[in-house]
Amino acid sequence: MVATADGARVDIIARDERATPRDGADKTVRAIADSTRAALDAAGLPLHEMLAVGLASPGPLDHRTGVVHFSPNIVGFDEVPLAAWLSDELDGATVFLDRDTAVAAIAERITGAARGVADFVYITVSTGLGGAIVSGGRMLRGVTNTAGELGHWPVALQMDVARKDSDELPRCGCGSYGCAESFAAGRNLAQAFGVSDAAEVYAAATRGDARAAALVERAERAVAALAVGITNALNPSLIVVGGSVAEKQRAHVIEPMRRAIRERAFAAPASAVQVVPAALGADVGMVGAVLVARERAAGEGEWFL
Amino acid sequence: MVATADGARVDIIARDERATPRDGADKTVRAIADSTRAALDAAGLPLHEMLAVGLASPGPLDHRTGVVHFSPNIVGFDEVPLAAWLSDELDGATVFLDRDTAVAAIAERITGAARGVADFVYITVSTGLGGAIVSGGRMLRGVTNTAGELGHWPVALQMDVARKDSDELPRCGCGSYGCAESFAAGRNLAQAFGVSDAAEVYAAATRGDARAAALVERAERAVAALAVGITNALNPSLIVVGGSVAEKQRAHVIEPMRRAIRERAFAAPASAVQVVPAALGADVGMVGAVLVARERAAGEGEWFL
Repeated sequence: MVATADGARVDIIARDERATPRDGADKTVRAIADSTRAALDAAGLPLHEMLAVGLASPGPLDHRTGVVHFSPNIVGFDEVPLAAWLSDELDGATVFLDRDTAVAAIAERITGAARGVADFVYITVSTGLGGAIVSGGRMLRGVTNTAGELGHWPVALQMDVARKDSDELPRCGCGSYGCAESFAAGRNLAQAFGVSDAAEVYAAATRGDARAAALVERAERAVAALAVGITNALNPSLIVVGGSVAEKQRAHVIEPMRRAIRERAFAAPASAVQVVPAALGADVGMVGAVLVARERAAGEGEWFL
Repeated sequence: MVATADGARVDIIARDERATPRDGADKTVRAIADSTRAALDAAGLPLHEMLAVGLASPGPLDHRTGVVHFSPNIVGFDEVPLAAWLSDELDGATVFLDRDTAVAAIAERITGAARGVADFVYITVSTGLGGAIVSGGRMLRGVTNTAGELGHWPVALQMDVARKDSDELPRCGCGSYGCAESFAAGRNLAQAFGVSDAAEVYAAATRGDARAAALVERAERAVAALAVGITNALNPSLIVVGGSVAEKQRAHVIEPMRRAIRERAFAAPASAVQVVPAALGADVGMVGAVLVARERAAGEGEWFL
């Protein structure tokens, strides 16, 4: 995808979409490079006129070193120096990597639902479940720059201590269990029901399928727990909820979060927080990556670096 | 308690301890004032020579306005302007209020286990379960200054959706359920076993009492979930664990946290974090309150304000 950015405005002038290869990180990096060249060709622009490449990837990753530590949903992303490899594939172009959810939060802050907001949490519920935390006007990065992985906050315990955890709680892609993602993310919900798309689970629940309804209710409880925890522990003024599942299933994602905050969080932070849908839709990652590349190439972006 | 503070050194020169009244906030404020005057008398100091009062209270509260919004474990603490009331009771003395866990984190940072650490989380497991988050060298305060209530992050879901949540999950003092505090704090653990002190639950579990062992294991799972969530979402270099339960039951609090991080958190943040016991023991709140009063009276303390 090629875009121009002017202030808060991003114009996508050429697109190129490809399926993510499932056979190794090097193939995935080459596919990204091929896609970049194809989009530049479509836009009629030579590679050397490109200011910089902005690249978003699921995490955890280090946006400063450009290394993806591990990505549960992409094959072979295990300590991959993604920014450096892609730069090599693109004749040494400047590449800025950041986590998909960080990039989305940056985009929502600069030009979306969180414009000008100093304390907000971005949550995405799509294939996976992730987030980013902005507090006091700065993105919370942590000591290895991997903070914000809110989907991997355990929100469930095995309550029957006689059984082993793995008997009852579904395994998460991260290797743990009890994670919000393991209940509420699209891929996990679909797998638990034995289908390929979470939309089928929601449709079956609506038709009255008891097993689907139970899975949907569990997913609602997981995002509700996350919303209450975020409100009590992080005390933001805004929770921006993006991602395809959240967008299509507002009644099952945003509404349970709002209800749980109202009913279960401490009154002071509960009355100060709003849960709103993301403003930028499916392009949020691309818009964010462009803004990140523009800001970082200019030596800006202190609040998110 | 009366103390002098010189740099990172705090010397307690007189103490006065009283049980917290259970019959209203005004009685509690008066007891604090009486205690302050008694300690000053014991130290042979007149009230007007006191630089400032540092006051720590369970939260959520607003350290800037000095108002306690609500405190699950203190009777009548419901939107109480604690700092102003105490100042009135002490002839207009300057009173600086902050949450007990924030004050403890400040003390551990200035003179305890987190000296010089920019990214750490303080957790206390005692009567209740609370915390404070320091990220990038600043305390995370949030939009109503109530951030850090980590004990009220839900870590359990009702897994059997046919039942109501309240049937299986114990109610938390905050009114919610599933909170880490509801499983792992001393008061909750004792109540669940029908005794007055959590030490009896641990002792019974050690003797082989199955019900006590199950409660202890559940408490371990709750602090384990919290530790994994903190590591993945906040990515600190240090988790400092204080509080009387944590201090007496390291094998049941700190060890399960360490094990869970090692086994279940993402590798990058897991390898970067250490879980250590608090350095300051039972006096941490007093030492912290003195340091807070000293810093705030001098117009300092930007990192925690």
